[in-house]
Amino acid sequence: MELLEKRIREEGKVLPGDILKVDGFLNHRIDPMLLDALGREFARLYKDSGVTKILTVEASGIAVAVMAGLHLGVPVLFAKKHRTANLSHDVYAADVFSFTHKTTYSIAVAKAYLTDMDRVLIIDDFLANGAAIRGLSSLVSQAGASLAGAGIAVEKGYQGGGDALRGEGMRIESLAVIESMDSSTGEIRFRR
Amino acid sequence: MELLEKRIREEGKVLPGDILKVDGFLNHRIDPMLLDALGREFARLYKDSGVTKILTVEASGIAVAVMAGLHLGVPVLFAKKHRTANLSHDVYAADVFSFTHKTTYSIAVAKAYLTDMDRVLIIDDFLANGAAIRGLSSLVSQAGASLAGAGIAVEKGYQGGGDALRGEGMRIESLAVIESMDSSTGEIRFRR
Repeated sequence: MELLEKRIREEGKVLPGDILKVDGFLNHRIDPMLLDALGREFARLYKDSGVTKILTVEASGIAVAVMAGLHLGVPVLFAKKHRTANLSHDVYAADVFSFTHKTTYSIAVAKAYLTDMDRVLIIDDFLANGAAIRGLSSLVSQAGASLAGAGIAVEKGYQGGGDALRGEGMRIESLAVIESMDSSTGEIRFRR
Repeated sequence: MELLEKRIREEGKVLPGDILKVDGFLNHRIDPMLLDALGREFARLYKDSGVTKILTVEASGIAVAVMAGLHLGVPVLFAKKHRTANLSHDVYAADVFSFTHKTTYSIAVAKAYLTDMDRVLIIDDFLANGAAIRGLSSLVSQAGASLAGAGIAVEKGYQGGGDALRGEGMRIESLAVIESMDSSTGEIRFRR
């Protein structure tokens, strides 16, 4: 998506250690008009997929998910993060290993809000190794719901998580896929 | 706001201990269409206040803040929560005591994204004792920014936090103010 790639090129900061900072418009300071456009694009991509619910994870997934939900006309459910496994009988939970923080956290949703009648679109701001998407996908499976696919704002293509999930048959639509970055020059190359 | 009060009356659950559960449409499962209407109403209330930025706190404030930002046409900054004080020189931080969880957490925003040129509208989903609003207001002061006021989806009027802030001169616009609740009957009375 040209609008998003342009914004990443103009305002994203490439830091050593393969870190892309986009906290000026996506995950700290948020540009609602940009996110509205992303939500509209996800709705266009998934409009014929029978989506009944959007699933994301707090915190930075919420803004883009709610815009996608607005344009698809479906509710948004956000999984809550916990430091420890949530053992309540009222929730579906999954462990997620964060490669960024080198720790495992648990995500959970209330069983009441995700059922076997749902067809779910997972939305998140970032996809790197795919651990968060796998965790969310596990919640969908536990509920007996079906998965329409995932919509991602920024995929770090070179980390391979998205392609691995595609190889397993999951539909992944990423609005910008980064093929490579160079922290010495600040150059960002997108997948075509 | 009749639309929100109706939704609270129909779907809110009053639990013992003055707890109002609205996680079916506001802070776990989110109704984007309702939040779009709330955002539109905040924009109407604050359209002549010169707002340049919306400030909220993760996680459940984000969805309503981004909708308000969309309708006001301004960026949204969400403060991040930490368990311990964030001592980085790059952030403004404040401590917030959570009456719900009986713990103190720290909230922080990057200095780069809140400046003395900003006129800030604070948005949050809930106002009870007002501790979160005071913490966010402290970030605004630390940045030398000016405060236009606060926009709240649901205020627990009987806890007094909103009225205390109004008494100190802060403009607070709450779209539903709960005067009293009864967990034995489930009755909810709104302020007129």
